[in-house]
Amino acid sequence: MSTPPAFKRLPRAVREQQMLDAAVKVFSRRGFHAASMDEIAEDAGISKPMVYAYLGTKEELFVACLHREGTRMMQAIAGAAAPDLPADERLWRGLRAFFGFVGAHRDGWAVLYRQARGEQPFAAELAGMRARMVEVIAGMLDHALRAEGREVGETELEVVAYALVGATESLADWLADHPEEDSARTATRMMNVAWLGAGQLLHGASWRPPAE
Amino acid sequence: MSTPPAFKRLPRAVREQQMLDAAVKVFSRRGFHAASMDEIAEDAGISKPMVYAYLGTKEELFVACLHREGTRMMQAIAGAAAPDLPADERLWRGLRAFFGFVGAHRDGWAVLYRQARGEQPFAAELAGMRARMVEVIAGMLDHALRAEGREVGETELEVVAYALVGATESLADWLADHPEEDSARTATRMMNVAWLGAGQLLHGASWRPPAE
Repeated sequence: MSTPPAFKRLPRAVREQQMLDAAVKVFSRRGFHAASMDEIAEDAGISKPMVYAYLGTKEELFVACLHREGTRMMQAIAGAAAPDLPADERLWRGLRAFFGFVGAHRDGWAVLYRQARGEQPFAAELAGMRARMVEVIAGMLDHALRAEGREVGETELEVVAYALVGATESLADWLADHPEEDSARTATRMMNVAWLGAGQLLHGASWRPPAE
Repeated sequence: MSTPPAFKRLPRAVREQQMLDAAVKVFSRRGFHAASMDEIAEDAGISKPMVYAYLGTKEELFVACLHREGTRMMQAIAGAAAPDLPADERLWRGLRAFFGFVGAHRDGWAVLYRQARGEQPFAAELAGMRARMVEVIAGMLDHALRAEGREVGETELEVVAYALVGATESLADWLADHPEEDSARTATRMMNVAWLGAGQLLHGASWRPPAE
């Protein structure tokens, strides 16, 4: 047994979470460019050199925020969409978890997300998350198709999954801008757009371009 | 009649287009941050002070590029989706024009677009274009609904339009990353996802969450 330290020290992991909490708050409030490491350190009740020592540059800190919030979101979605449910119910539960997360983190995730889009290296982090979501959705559709004894090409599934992810991200933006709107209702709306179409596709229907 | 100038002068509008052509090329090749006004001026065959005098700072020049390319794209879409056609055919033609534009401008528009997303003030320019697209699509759906003697709330139409625009943007990203893919085929795929669902919605079908 070691003797207790003369003043209270928090474990590294706890300190890091405190810094990330402060960083998410400050980045959301000020934007990436205007946020200062001074304010983040002050909000976390920690010295600035310690923030740098633990989490690196402001850029690295922002990526760490994105990564933590993104991972939490992905876990919320994965936990909700249990694999033994029918495809539409899995999609519905996943969407409800997603919009629920966005609705509950309007000032955090939505702001970080908007700042990160398009700007390297943050865009790479988001592209990675999007790719994982696309893979999960394509896998789910493939599973549902096989259950009906059907099969479609990998590219087709990928395209449908990209479209669903894009539609969902767009509605998340919309929800972030409409604080009076309910997240479960937004999930139902997304099902109405997505599932009515995807469900038809699963049953072999397809749209044909008109003859010119 | 004034006497002709001693050496050839191009009209201001022509010069500006040359500068914008050069700027789109250099921004696409280097990215916004790494692009230099020197290279843009050299590519346009014009002096750097003249570029500043005509189109302002690098940031203003980038916004001017986005605005010109975006306006061209919107015109291509509006021209294709003639208002007297049935709703699905209008959507199809609009999508084909959109993906055709993205496919033909893979090195220009797609790159500018990705750089602009998320970063102020560029994001505001894109948000404005997106809002106009949402309005057009919501209007088209409203028109199709009324033709069937039905009516749905403005918010519902807006949500469907946001989802369609988001899905379409996501597939444009996908198309930009897959140069071997055909843009008309991508438009048909988008119709398969979007129209099968939207068509059902137009006929009054809707998805209901399962009882818990």
